[in-house]
Amino acid sequence: MSKKTLKIIPLGGLNEIGKNITAFEYGNDIIVLDCGIAFPDEEMLGIDLVIPDFSYLIKNKDKVRALVITHGHEDHIGAIPFFLKEINVPVYGTRLTLGLVEHKLYEHNILSTTKLNKVSAGDTVRFGEITVEFIRTNHSIADACAIAFHTPVGIILHTGDFKIDPTPVTGKMLDLARFAELGKQGITLLMSDSTNAERQGYTMSESTIGGTLDDIFMQNKKSRIIVATFASNIHRMQQIIDAAHKTGRKVAVSGRSMENILTVAIELGYMKVPPGVLVDIDAISKYNKNQTVIITTGSQGEPMSALYRMAYSDHKKIEITNGDVVVVSASPIPGNEKFISRVINELFRKGAKVIYDAMADIHVSGHACQEELKLILGLCQPKYFMPVHGEYRHLIKHKELAEKVGISEKNIFIADIGNILEISGKTAKLNGTVTSGRVFVDGLGVGDVGNIVIRDRKHLSQFGLLVIVVTISSTEKKIVAGPDIISRGFVYVRESEMLMQGAKDISLATIEKCLSRGTIDWSSMKADVRSEVADFIFKETKRRPMILPVIMEV
Amino acid sequence: MSKKTLKIIPLGGLNEIGKNITAFEYGNDIIVLDCGIAFPDEEMLGIDLVIPDFSYLIKNKDKVRALVITHGHEDHIGAIPFFLKEINVPVYGTRLTLGLVEHKLYEHNILSTTKLNKVSAGDTVRFGEITVEFIRTNHSIADACAIAFHTPVGIILHTGDFKIDPTPVTGKMLDLARFAELGKQGITLLMSDSTNAERQGYTMSESTIGGTLDDIFMQNKKSRIIVATFASNIHRMQQIIDAAHKTGRKVAVSGRSMENILTVAIELGYMKVPPGVLVDIDAISKYNKNQTVIITTGSQGEPMSALYRMAYSDHKKIEITNGDVVVVSASPIPGNEKFISRVINELFRKGAKVIYDAMADIHVSGHACQEELKLILGLCQPKYFMPVHGEYRHLIKHKELAEKVGISEKNIFIADIGNILEISGKTAKLNGTVTSGRVFVDGLGVGDVGNIVIRDRKHLSQFGLLVIVVTISSTEKKIVAGPDIISRGFVYVRESEMLMQGAKDISLATIEKCLSRGTIDWSSMKADVRSEVADFIFKETKRRPMILPVIMEV
Repeated sequence: MSKKTLKIIPLGGLNEIGKNITAFEYGNDIIVLDCGIAFPDEEMLGIDLVIPDFSYLIKNKDKVRALVITHGHEDHIGAIPFFLKEINVPVYGTRLTLGLVEHKLYEHNILSTTKLNKVSAGDTVRFGEITVEFIRTNHSIADACAIAFHTPVGIILHTGDFKIDPTPVTGKMLDLARFAELGKQGITLLMSDSTNAERQGYTMSESTIGGTLDDIFMQNKKSRIIVATFASNIHRMQQIIDAAHKTGRKVAVSGRSMENILTVAIELGYMKVPPGVLVDIDAISKYNKNQTVIITTGSQGEPMSALYRMAYSDHKKIEITNGDVVVVSASPIPGNEKFISRVINELFRKGAKVIYDAMADIHVSGHACQEELKLILGLCQPKYFMPVHGEYRHLIKHKELAEKVGISEKNIFIADIGNILEISGKTAKLNGTVTSGRVFVDGLGVGDVGNIVIRDRKHLSQFGLLVIVVTISSTEKKIVAGPDIISRGFVYVRESEMLMQGAKDISLATIEKCLSRGTIDWSSMKADVRSEVADFIFKETKRRPMILPVIMEV
Repeated sequence: MSKKTLKIIPLGGLNEIGKNITAFEYGNDIIVLDCGIAFPDEEMLGIDLVIPDFSYLIKNKDKVRALVITHGHEDHIGAIPFFLKEINVPVYGTRLTLGLVEHKLYEHNILSTTKLNKVSAGDTVRFGEITVEFIRTNHSIADACAIAFHTPVGIILHTGDFKIDPTPVTGKMLDLARFAELGKQGITLLMSDSTNAERQGYTMSESTIGGTLDDIFMQNKKSRIIVATFASNIHRMQQIIDAAHKTGRKVAVSGRSMENILTVAIELGYMKVPPGVLVDIDAISKYNKNQTVIITTGSQGEPMSALYRMAYSDHKKIEITNGDVVVVSASPIPGNEKFISRVINELFRKGAKVIYDAMADIHVSGHACQEELKLILGLCQPKYFMPVHGEYRHLIKHKELAEKVGISEKNIFIADIGNILEISGKTAKLNGTVTSGRVFVDGLGVGDVGNIVIRDRKHLSQFGLLVIVVTISSTEKKIVAGPDIISRGFVYVRESEMLMQGAKDISLATIEKCLSRGTIDWSSMKADVRSEVADFIFKETKRRPMILPVIMEV
C-alpha cells in the first residue's frame, strides 16, 4: 500500500448550483472533472458569467493530466475555454459532450490548439496511477456519464448529474449493473448528485412527455404549436419532432443555442429527424399555421430569448396570433419564476393558449429523486459518502438519505469548495483547504470586476450619484470655476431644482471654509464636501446617493 | 330608471399583484375601494414602494366621498397615507383593519386629521345614491370583508381577497347566506379575487395548520422552536401560541411589524393569549431553550428581517444553535424563492433543523382556489363578471371558470387599470380610460423618481461609470487642467491602468481636436468625448459604462 494519499478537492458545485469542477490529485497527477459556469445572482450586477477560481490548478499546472467531462451542460462545460487558456490539457468526454465543447472552443478561437479525446460509456483511460472509467447514466442531455476513478486507495465513484430512466427516449438505462459490480468490488467513496434530494419518490421518465405532447398536438389540430424548452434537451426536441411528424406538421427551430445543438445532435446521430419534417424558420410561413410547430428557446423567460421576443412582438419571423398554442416544456429554475410568468402573461395577451407547468405534465427533471438516490447508495454501499451538486440544504438532505441506507454519519462528508478530502488506504478525512471561489466574467474581462466594483454598482443602482466638480487655483487659494453638480439616477433634476441648488450651496460653503483655513488638503476637502452634502441630501430625501467630489487644480 | 351610469374604474390590482384600488363613480359621488401598495420589481432599482397613480381622483377630488377598505393587508391599505395627504376623506373599515390603518397614519403623522369610521360585517353605509354593505369573508387576516355596492343600476359585489373557510381559527365562515341572498335579488356585476384561479380544488382551512404545529411541537420537545410567518397572519400566530401553551412553552415575538400587529390584535380582542405565555424577547433567555418558542418575521427571506438576522448571526437577541427547530410557515411569494432559500441554507449551516414548504403542511393560502371561485360564481349568478386581483393569466383562468358556470363570454370583462366599465340599467361596456399607473416612493420622495432615473440606475448597475473632467480656458481656448478620469463600478482601477490611461489619452486628443476647430461648442465637445471614449472602452472590454464628460470653463 502506497503511503501517498488521494486528495479530492471540489473547486465548485458544493453549496451552490453550478460551476461544477473537482480535482482528483494523487502524487504527481491531477485529473480535473468537469469545468462549468454558474449564472450570476441578481446581486452580481452586470456580470455575464461566473467561473471557478482555478488558482490551485494553475499553481499545480504541471501535475494536471486531463480534463474529464461527464456531460455537455453549461454548468459542466461552460468554463472549459477559460480553463484551457490557463492550462492546456487534453479533454475527455463522450461524442455529444465533445461536440458541444468543440463549438465553444471554436467561438473562443482555441479549437485548433486543444486535444479532444472522444470516449464511449464503458471506456477506461489511464492517467498515471489513476484509471478513469466512463459509465452510462441518464440525464436531461444525451450521452451523460458517471465516472469511476480506480485509484491506489480504492474506487471513487462520481455520479455526475443523473437520474434512473428505465425507458429513455434513445439509448439505454443508466448502467445499474456496473454500479452494482463496483459496489461488490467495494467503493471507497461515492460522490452523488444532490439536486433533487429534497424531492420524494422517483423522477418520471423523459418518455412520459411524449404522451403529453401527442395529446396536446391531437387536441389542437387547428392551431400552430410553439414549444419552448431547454436548448440542450435533445430528447425533448426529438419527442416534439416525433409528435409533429405523427400529426403531419413541419418543424422549425428558433434560438441560436438551440439551432447549434440541434445541428450537432443530428450530425452525430443523436437525433433522428424524418426527411422533410425540419424546415428553415424562414420557410415556415409557406405552410398553413396548423401544419407547423416551432421549437424555441426562452423557456425560462430570459429577456431577448426567442420566446420572449415572440411574446413582446419583437421576433423578426414569428408573430404570436390568436389561437396559437404555446407549450412551456420546462420548470422555472429558482429565481426565474417572475421572468417566465411575465412572458406567459404577454402570450395570453396576444391571444395564445399557453400550456405550462402548473397545468400539465409537460416537464420532467433530469435529476434523481430520493428513491433513486437511495437505490444508488444501497447498490454502491460505499465506505465513505460525499453528497455533491447542491446547496447546503440539498447536501444535508442527501446525507440523511445516506444514513437511512446505513452509512454511518462519521463517514459522510459535508464539504465546501476548496476543502481537501484526503483518502488513504484506510481512512478519509477533511484535511486543509486550497484557494477557491468565484471569478466574474464581464464582457471580455475575466476577474477584473471584484467585490468593490460590485459594491459600487449596487450603491449606484439603489441611489444613483452626484458628481460635484470644482476648479481651484492653488496659488490664489480660491475657486475659479464651479462648484457644478451633475446627477444621474438620483432624482428627476428639473423637478428638484431646490434640492440641487441646496447641494450646490453647501458644497460652495464647505469648500470656501476649507480654503479659508489656509493649508490646502485636497483629500480632506473632498471628504468634507462628501459628508456635508450626504447629510443634507439624506435629511431632505432619506436617500444616500454616491457623492463624488472632483477638484481640478489650476 | 336614472339616465346616469355607474362607472367602475380599477386604478390598480389588474394585471399585477398588489396596489389594489378601485373607484366607483355615480353622478357626483365617488367611493374608493381599498388603497394598497405594490412591492417593487427587481427592475425598479432603489425603489421602496409602488403606489397607484391617483391623478384621476385628485382631479375629481370634490366628488370623492369615502375610502372603503376590505381588509388590513399592505396591498390594500399601504397607500392610504399617500392618498389621504392628497384627498382627505373619511375611511371605513372593520375594527382590526382600522387598527392597522391607525398605526400607519400615526407613523405618517396624519392620524389626528383623519376621520376613521369603524364598521362591522353586516353594516351598511350610505354615500349619496350608493349604499355600501360589508359582508364577512375569510382570508389570511381577520376581519376581512367583501363589499356590496347597492346602486341605482343594481348590485355590484366585490369579493375583496377571500377564501371559504368553514373552520376558521376564530370568527365565522364567509357569509355564504348573504352571497346567496344577493344572488337571488340579482347581482349586476361580480368582481372576484383571481389570485389562485390557476389552482385546482379547494384551499385548505387555516385551522389545519394547528394540527401540524401540534405535531412539530410534540416531536421536538428538546428543542427551541422558531416559527417564521407573515406578520399580519393573526390566526397563524394564535395557533402557534396555542401549540406553545399546550406544550408548556413561553412565546416571544421578534420583528417590528409583527410586534405592532400583535399589540393591535390583542388590544382589539382578535387574539386570546393565555396569561403568562407571552414574554418579552429580552426575557426569553431566562427560560430553558426547549421551553420557548420565538415567532418571527422574515418568512420570505427578506434581508434585514428578524429571521434573516438570526440566520446570519446578526440578531441582537437570538442566536441559532445546534438543535434549534425553525419552521417556515409560509410559501415563497413569486420572486422571493432565492431569498428564502439562502436563509434556509444558512439556518441548516448553523445546525438548525428547518421545516419548510417542500416538506410539511405548514402553510395554507388565504385565497380561494377554483372550486371556491366557481361556488361563488354559481351562488351569485351575476349578469356581468369582472375578474380582479391578478396577473393577466389569472384573470383569463378566472374567466374560463366563469364560462363553465354559465356566464356568457360577452358578459365577462377582462380589463386593465385605468379602464372605465360603464354600467347603465341595461348594459355594461368598457368605455374609455382615465390616467392610471404607478408612482414610485423612494425615501421621502413620492414620484420624483421616474423612468429616466430608473433607466440610469439600471445602466449604472450593469456597467458603472466614467467621469471625465477637464478645465478649459475659454479665452485662450486651451486646457488648463485635466482631463482627469474617475470611475466607479467599472473596473478595479489599480489593475486597469493601461485602460484608464487609454481613455485619458483619447479624451485629451478629442478635446484638443475640438479646441483646434476654433469655435467652442461645449455640448458637441462633450458628445465627441463621450462617443470616442465609449468606442474605445467597448472595443477593449465589450462593456458600456455610463460616460459623463464634465467641462469646467475658466
